[in-house]
Amino acid sequence: MNEEKFLAIHNRILPFIHETPVMTSRLLNEISGGDLHFKCENFQRMGAFKMRGAANAILSLSIDEKSRGVVTHSSGNFAQATAFSGQLMGVTTYIVMPNNAPLVKKDAVKAYGGIITECGPSIAQREAAVEDVIMQTGAISLHPSNQDEVILGNSTIGVEFFNQVSDLQRIIVPVGGGGMIAGIALAAEAFSETCEVIGAEPAAAADAQRSLREGKIQKNDTANTIADGLRTHLGDRNFPIIQRLVKDIITVEEDEIIIAMKLIWERLKIIIEPSAAVAVAVALKEKKAVRKGKTGIVLSGGNVDLGNLPF
Amino acid sequence: MNEEKFLAIHNRILPFIHETPVMTSRLLNEISGGDLHFKCENFQRMGAFKMRGAANAILSLSIDEKSRGVVTHSSGNFAQATAFSGQLMGVTTYIVMPNNAPLVKKDAVKAYGGIITECGPSIAQREAAVEDVIMQTGAISLHPSNQDEVILGNSTIGVEFFNQVSDLQRIIVPVGGGGMIAGIALAAEAFSETCEVIGAEPAAAADAQRSLREGKIQKNDTANTIADGLRTHLGDRNFPIIQRLVKDIITVEEDEIIIAMKLIWERLKIIIEPSAAVAVAVALKEKKAVRKGKTGIVLSGGNVDLGNLPF
Repeated sequence: MNEEKFLAIHNRILPFIHETPVMTSRLLNEISGGDLHFKCENFQRMGAFKMRGAANAILSLSIDEKSRGVVTHSSGNFAQATAFSGQLMGVTTYIVMPNNAPLVKKDAVKAYGGIITECGPSIAQREAAVEDVIMQTGAISLHPSNQDEVILGNSTIGVEFFNQVSDLQRIIVPVGGGGMIAGIALAAEAFSETCEVIGAEPAAAADAQRSLREGKIQKNDTANTIADGLRTHLGDRNFPIIQRLVKDIITVEEDEIIIAMKLIWERLKIIIEPSAAVAVAVALKEKKAVRKGKTGIVLSGGNVDLGNLPF
Repeated sequence: MNEEKFLAIHNRILPFIHETPVMTSRLLNEISGGDLHFKCENFQRMGAFKMRGAANAILSLSIDEKSRGVVTHSSGNFAQATAFSGQLMGVTTYIVMPNNAPLVKKDAVKAYGGIITECGPSIAQREAAVEDVIMQTGAISLHPSNQDEVILGNSTIGVEFFNQVSDLQRIIVPVGGGGMIAGIALAAEAFSETCEVIGAEPAAAADAQRSLREGKIQKNDTANTIADGLRTHLGDRNFPIIQRLVKDIITVEEDEIIIAMKLIWERLKIIIEPSAAVAVAVALKEKKAVRKGKTGIVLSGGNVDLGNLPF
């Protein structure tokens, strides 16, 4: 894909998203020894980058498909992003959520007009619930990370980033389901000759690192990490892109994630969620790598429970 | 004073400060029923507006005065602002701090090259310690809020704000020592025909409201407020300006301050300190007043102890 194609996607979703700012900090440059540029998707609508993929996926549907509505299963940011995008575009949204999902997340989905179907917590139960909604309504299924139009929606983070900061040498991106890093890697391929894309993952859920090294999608047996957005695994649509375009995936420990999160709160004076802090922690750990040229860091979201902070 | 004078001050301090951004939020507009514009001094260097006054005060000294150094007494943001400004300008700074000041604040002053003199916690002890430093070093005394050049430094918040947002109908400003609101009121007089300046104060330390109503500077017997930057009282340099140019000072309760602080953290995804939240709380309380035209709100700083949050 060439630049024009990505710019067209960006133009298409622009009425429904924020073009997020890039922040810098002399103090964080001193601490890291690098030249760090933070892409603030925590300032994105509903507080996370997921709006981009959800908006692009719904916009890519035909009029007939839109009239049937969309269905997704998510207990997190993608549920809200889908409901909010549907509300903005006049498309009915069915959100399958586990019955143990926090009330505050269900309320947020309802506030955006999403129709919730509760299900048991297992993957089989979720998938059955989605199938059930499709049977009853004919709704189109959206996947939070493993769908081409979602990946292309996420590519617009890169489109903006390359426009905002010249000569990025590398971009560090948190890896959960793989939809964000795949999108940004596609944009990097189109917009830069030299920019490397590097994944950031908690050591406690290092499925993507293992997948990349073993050449086959791996899953986590356990995923006891504070970075709750990164507990999922890669999919067959994004993994080939990641294999082809992502240079490396680097892991960090839980205490490094918390230190990085606190540092951003204290120094940049902005709220980021633990999943975003994973990318910051990688930049702080890889001091030698970030010393050369400009480093972009994607702060993927800012939705945290202020009543349950790790510091 | 005319616009040119204020613009010259702004130009003079610009190499030493950040021109801070203005943020808006559809959700906060919905909640308040107003059109709110947040001036983010929490993103100012060292995390609070105090850099502006400290920088302008030191820049206004003669070469001889600069060579003698400056002295101030503060345990808060002005101590750091003075030390940092001095470091940037090559001027020695003597900071008188109470011996019960938190270690983290002393360390921050030291990191900026400030020379600390510890003293007892009473006002008499502080003043004696400052006199002592002046006797020994010939240093020039700086006051955090009650000095013309500090007030004029703070006026640059207004200079930027009027440049960034057209047709502000009112600006809500937290009131502690009175140096910030006096500076912004002077800028409003020069740059706007119609903009009102409104003070925001905790009910638990409502000295400025009482001062304005009684026409004479009042002090607080007690000041048990979470807004620790607003416990001080007005001074003879800023009070006449406040009397002449500030329309009203409105108070809010402690629970309103905490709710407003949490709302900004959750919705704008930025860190503000309780003193800044006082202005937000006033905007949320005065729904009728903010319904008409654009309201500016000065988020004065973002220096909080993350280990000791009220929620």
